[in-house]
Amino acid sequence: MSAIVRHESKGILSSAVEHGNTVYLAGITADDQSQDAKGQAAQILATIDRLLALCGSHKSKVLTATIWVSDIRNRPLMNESWNAWTGGKDLPARACIESKMADPNCLVEIQVVAAK
Amino acid sequence: MSAIVRHESKGILSSAVEHGNTVYLAGITADDQSQDAKGQAAQILATIDRLLALCGSHKSKVLTATIWVSDIRNRPLMNESWNAWTGGKDLPARACIESKMADPNCLVEIQVVAAK
Amino acid sequence: MSAIVRHESKGILSSAVEHGNTVYLAGITADDQSQDAKGQAAQILATIDRLLALCGSHKSKVLTATIWVSDIRNRPLMNESWNAWTGGKDLPARACIESKMADPNCLVEIQVVAAK
Repeated sequence: MSAIVRHESKGILSSAVEHGNTVYLAGITADDQSQDAKGQAAQILATIDRLLALCGSHKSKVLTATIWVSDIRNRPLMNESWNAWTGGKDLPARACIESKMADPNCLVEIQVVAAK
Repeated sequence: MSAIVRHESKGILSSAVEHGNTVYLAGITADDQSQDAKGQAAQILATIDRLLALCGSHKSKVLTATIWVSDIRNRPLMNESWNAWTGGKDLPARACIESKMADPNCLVEIQVVAAK
Repeated sequence: MSAIVRHESKGILSSAVEHGNTVYLAGITADDQSQDAKGQAAQILATIDRLLALCGSHKSKVLTATIWVSDIRNRPLMNESWNAWTGGKDLPARACIESKMADPNCLVEIQVVAAK
């Protein structure tokens, strides 16, 4: 049995959950949803950096990412921020699909699983 | 190498798969799809309780949940059952997005990963 | 801490990432998207077989699968290839939902997590 550690648990979810040497983050959306898909993705990836650090992990240890875009035509804009974030190194497995999210102004949501 | 244990394997999927100290459930839908999103979510969460017990797990050990709603406007109704189920404790990481499911009467589908 | 091993890392993603005794594949799509959902699913599952082998895994060790279809009415066609692939044995947990994918000709995308 591995310990479970939950971070920023409030309301409906925890922002991050550690189990053994695996970290599960919540689907993260942007705080400022007036920005375009590139700007929203950059905000999200900064939040993911912060949450991974909380768990003793790092973007170099991301195993897989699920990316939802509310309009698949925004995938290239989202990818600009994605590529700036990865720097082409330590690339996770990934799926990017179209789904609406809770807020109609929400253009991107990213959820990752990482190693510690 | 960790043992793999599969539960309720029939047709296209297993309802639950154990691997080491991690449990993967199938995406669960409601048996009675005449109910609204709140009622369907309550049924689903009862099924999840049953499957977690089969695996020696429990809702207090859920690590992450993916929730699909066929109409994102049903998210608040689904959340009523979600919040009753979690009781605000041991909250998993979570993403909730809109996708159609196999049956047009299916309003909610929930898939969880849990610790044993 | 478990080692992370990444396979076919290029551009935006790795096709497969090993972490300890768990393998995360990318969401796989078909190379020949002129085929129908059955043909695309068969191609995808052949790619999944190849990637699992790269990681020292096998379809008998798949823990969970997420299947996106661009039109939920293609689920039965996709399932024909799915059932031929599983042979009804060692069935993973599974969710199948509708989402658009990057290319409008892309009818199916499948992402799996497997044990080594």
